[in-house]
Amino acid sequence: MAATSWDPGQYLRFADARLRPALDLLAQVPLEAPARVVDLGCGPGTVTRILKSRFPSAAVTGIDSSAAMLAQARDAAPGCTFAQADFATWAPDTPPDLIYSNAALHWTGGHGTLFPRLLDRLAPGGVLAVQMPAMHDAPLRRLQITVAAEGPWAARLADAAGVARDILSPGAYWDILRPHAAGLELWETTYLHALTGVDPVVEWAAGTSLRPYLDPLPPDQQANFRAAYAAALRPHYPRRADGTTLLPFRRLFLIARRA
Amino acid sequence: MAATSWDPGQYLRFADARLRPALDLLAQVPLEAPARVVDLGCGPGTVTRILKSRFPSAAVTGIDSSAAMLAQARDAAPGCTFAQADFATWAPDTPPDLIYSNAALHWTGGHGTLFPRLLDRLAPGGVLAVQMPAMHDAPLRRLQITVAAEGPWAARLADAAGVARDILSPGAYWDILRPHAAGLELWETTYLHALTGVDPVVEWAAGTSLRPYLDPLPPDQQANFRAAYAAALRPHYPRRADGTTLLPFRRLFLIARRA
Repeated sequence: MAATSWDPGQYLRFADARLRPALDLLAQVPLEAPARVVDLGCGPGTVTRILKSRFPSAAVTGIDSSAAMLAQARDAAPGCTFAQADFATWAPDTPPDLIYSNAALHWTGGHGTLFPRLLDRLAPGGVLAVQMPAMHDAPLRRLQITVAAEGPWAARLADAAGVARDILSPGAYWDILRPHAAGLELWETTYLHALTGVDPVVEWAAGTSLRPYLDPLPPDQQANFRAAYAAALRPHYPRRADGTTLLPFRRLFLIARRA
Repeated sequence: MAATSWDPGQYLRFADARLRPALDLLAQVPLEAPARVVDLGCGPGTVTRILKSRFPSAAVTGIDSSAAMLAQARDAAPGCTFAQADFATWAPDTPPDLIYSNAALHWTGGHGTLFPRLLDRLAPGGVLAVQMPAMHDAPLRRLQITVAAEGPWAARLADAAGVARDILSPGAYWDILRPHAAGLELWETTYLHALTGVDPVVEWAAGTSLRPYLDPLPPDQQANFRAAYAAALRPHYPRRADGTTLLPFRRLFLIARRA
């Protein structure tokens, strides 16, 4: 084992299991000691800090569009620098060796042009590493659209489905990136989340993808919408014999290397 | 980083990418220094050797039903011991701390009793770590059954579909193991294999899941069966603009800890 070897399990044993997709992505980055690392869509800096720990000699920069997130990130990840920018227009001063983006680029459309541009912004031999949720075909997401279209809230929610963008298929990312990449790996992992409580998939969604459907509604309609959504979800996410509800949550990963 | 930390990437950078599922499974094993490790279905010992490298202080034993495989494994993995046994009836002399099984248990049926029994054979706090291909719903496997049933070879292939067993759904493994396990993690990863050549998915299958369909046929029917299967597969695995054919290959992973 090299002295610099990296044990993702060390983080998982002590940290939140929600870090696992970020660590699964990082484990596949085929770089030993990049000089410049960018965490694109760094959020509160939890993963930026891990990137710095994985690559201690690197200059690590976190990019986010939210000033509030960046304030948290500066506290969470000492020794890193941070800058506010929009993913779609961000350009680095000096080409980085690694652009890492965990659960962020699905908030931006236009992947057919965005992804080759990100690859192009790397130093020669640099790596683009991306993880995004891929739940657009799952009942969790599909039934938000169905329930929104069929209730008394349909007019208010006419634009809600457009807020959460569909990411593309793995094959589409292959076609977009392969002509520009010296190497390309794609995979999808479906993590089986074991949830507890009453209608726990609704609770899960309420913090994220359900927000564009709840926020436009007055309180009584919010409650009715949640109830209709919960009823629609139940057959797809049944409670098991032990009281657990299993939520399969799919995520798309890609690692592209610039020539 | 601890001195004993483990870098799966180190293997991947120098070894065959086909090792990745084995390493992905190993990376999630929540043990630091197990005393006894069993590689159940060790085949030619490639992964047994990696287990010994990951856990150098452990007594590592490879189990396989094939004497030919065990002969290879003894050469491939020095410092390990090996024994011939059937997965379904194997029992260790001393309860191991880790039973690891990569791409083997799908050859055996009766998972509803086999998996709890394997958990029961562990030392207290021990871990059962399993990876199996989960391709039974994929066109690669479904169209073998369809083409076999519809051609002049139907009578000869009446039993072929029974050779490759369907593994169960992730939820079924949850229900089977949860009552017996102190901890349980399940996930599925679909690796996107980039294949080249003419009808490369047929070539891929010819070495493994297609064998029970080809072996019973005389040579001319073998050729016709392959041609019919190739034609049926093409719409599902189209050749991309760069000449590549992408084969999504799904695998089920589980990590269960004994109380």
